[in-house]
Amino acid sequence: MGTIGEAGEFGLIARLTRRLPQGRDILLGPGDDAAVIAAPDRRVVATTDLLVEGRHFRRDWCGPYDIGRKAAAQNLADVVAMGARPTALLVGFAAPPATAVDWAERLYDGLADECREAGASVAGGDVVAAPEVTLAVTALGDLGGAEPLTRSGARPGDIVAVRGRLGHAAAGLALLSEGRDGPAELIAAYRRPEPPYAAGEEARSRGATALLDVSDGLVQDLGHIAAAGGVGIEIDSSAVPVPEILGPSGPVYALTGGEDHAFAGTFPPDAVLPPSWKRIGVVAEGTGVRVDGREPPTGGWDHFRA
Amino acid sequence: MGTIGEAGEFGLIARLTRRLPQGRDILLGPGDDAAVIAAPDRRVVATTDLLVEGRHFRRDWCGPYDIGRKAAAQNLADVVAMGARPTALLVGFAAPPATAVDWAERLYDGLADECREAGASVAGGDVVAAPEVTLAVTALGDLGGAEPLTRSGARPGDIVAVRGRLGHAAAGLALLSEGRDGPAELIAAYRRPEPPYAAGEEARSRGATALLDVSDGLVQDLGHIAAAGGVGIEIDSSAVPVPEILGPSGPVYALTGGEDHAFAGTFPPDAVLPPSWKRIGVVAEGTGVRVDGREPPTGGWDHFRA
Repeated sequence: MGTIGEAGEFGLIARLTRRLPQGRDILLGPGDDAAVIAAPDRRVVATTDLLVEGRHFRRDWCGPYDIGRKAAAQNLADVVAMGARPTALLVGFAAPPATAVDWAERLYDGLADECREAGASVAGGDVVAAPEVTLAVTALGDLGGAEPLTRSGARPGDIVAVRGRLGHAAAGLALLSEGRDGPAELIAAYRRPEPPYAAGEEARSRGATALLDVSDGLVQDLGHIAAAGGVGIEIDSSAVPVPEILGPSGPVYALTGGEDHAFAGTFPPDAVLPPSWKRIGVVAEGTGVRVDGREPPTGGWDHFRA
Repeated sequence: MGTIGEAGEFGLIARLTRRLPQGRDILLGPGDDAAVIAAPDRRVVATTDLLVEGRHFRRDWCGPYDIGRKAAAQNLADVVAMGARPTALLVGFAAPPATAVDWAERLYDGLADECREAGASVAGGDVVAAPEVTLAVTALGDLGGAEPLTRSGARPGDIVAVRGRLGHAAAGLALLSEGRDGPAELIAAYRRPEPPYAAGEEARSRGATALLDVSDGLVQDLGHIAAAGGVGIEIDSSAVPVPEILGPSGPVYALTGGEDHAFAGTFPPDAVLPPSWKRIGVVAEGTGVRVDGREPPTGGWDHFRA
């Protein structure tokens, strides 16, 4: 297949953009100075993440297809966590010139497939040379006339609930770090999160007062809702889903593990949630997050310290 | 001031976002899962670039403030080259933990000031640790009801014209490569391009049929207009502005040097251009770009080969 250095910038761009289906929100796709994307609501939701090899992924632990899916998923989940419908991704891709074109194409296949899953397209991007593989992903979304679901709306008495897997990615990462290759379900969860994209619309339709995706760990991320709303959050750990496969450290993984991109939100006291949502606590007067009435275990992810 | 590793991810984010004024297009700024930005036109223009230390800039040649201005400028220029008004930037910032917080703050000052120049704001971003400083900049813009100025609309008989400096950045880069520190004007042009942001609105008001910003060299970039429109472009080199300061290689710098982010466009034969625009040629039947009736000098930038 050759290397991307041999293909050259414009050859590589041609090979990659060919793999990216353009949905109806893409009014003008890759190839000009900029893309043009539908924003029917007159507002656009936008978020960006930078993923660096060795820091956010390891090429010996994750193949290009999974890296692509994960990079897309974490940004698409952020858009959904605002209560918006994802429309488009812009992707900056940096790689050493010796990288196989095939590897890059598989990565873009992963990006494209995750976008399909969430109803979005890849609208544009950039490719450059760099010592490590680096991905810069920006996701855009449409609010469809509704107000954004921010982190600041939780009120004392609200229900706290989660939707999606917790702790699986952290358990999978721990297994890979120990050189193990199973259970396959946990390794796969680390390699490729499966954000339940329907959660944004479900939360909005049930009157959610705050919503976010769990990227840094449940307790740490709920802390953002507590801080932004000036409230306390009381978690009942026995209500937090901890499937047996997570093993003896399961409760810790579920409370502090990030990267599953589950959704956590707060809802009015009388909200009736779909069965896929699990009620795990309540919003209270006060500050911070308490688990079973106590200070929670520390944990979570600081990109510069961890 | 301490290092960004000492400040930690959330400390650094707080220090950086404090420096970013939020204009009226920013409906919800940094701090939630995603930002919300005005898109009054129901479409949004979006472009992204990845800038890697050692490849796109050298910290010994450029200070953080200029790196910030340049990173913003090249994306804001892409938005303007679509005939749009820049509204917002999203910035992914990767740096080694030993980087001084002060250095990062100056970089964000540069981003913020270049945004002010173009009428945009910094709406959101991401900070992560990495071995090299890397910037991932996404710019958004509003078309105000007009059609985007793409690269494909040039027709035989159209005027070809440019607005802004050509060759200055390339001459400045050559001087730095030779270890020289003057002329200061050229070094400064390399460190900090000054895209004439009014060019987009000017071009649109004069009925421009195609527009782009000159990032990879005039001849190479006009080649995109030729290819996209299925036309040829005839350049009269004596009409291309080559100020004396560019020195003996001036004509080559002006025709092949990138990174000044001048604007080049095509206009109907009867268009009356403002004095700041220089007519440099015509659109013809055929393919490719010819300079004084001949094949042009080769040159321009391939990110994987150069």
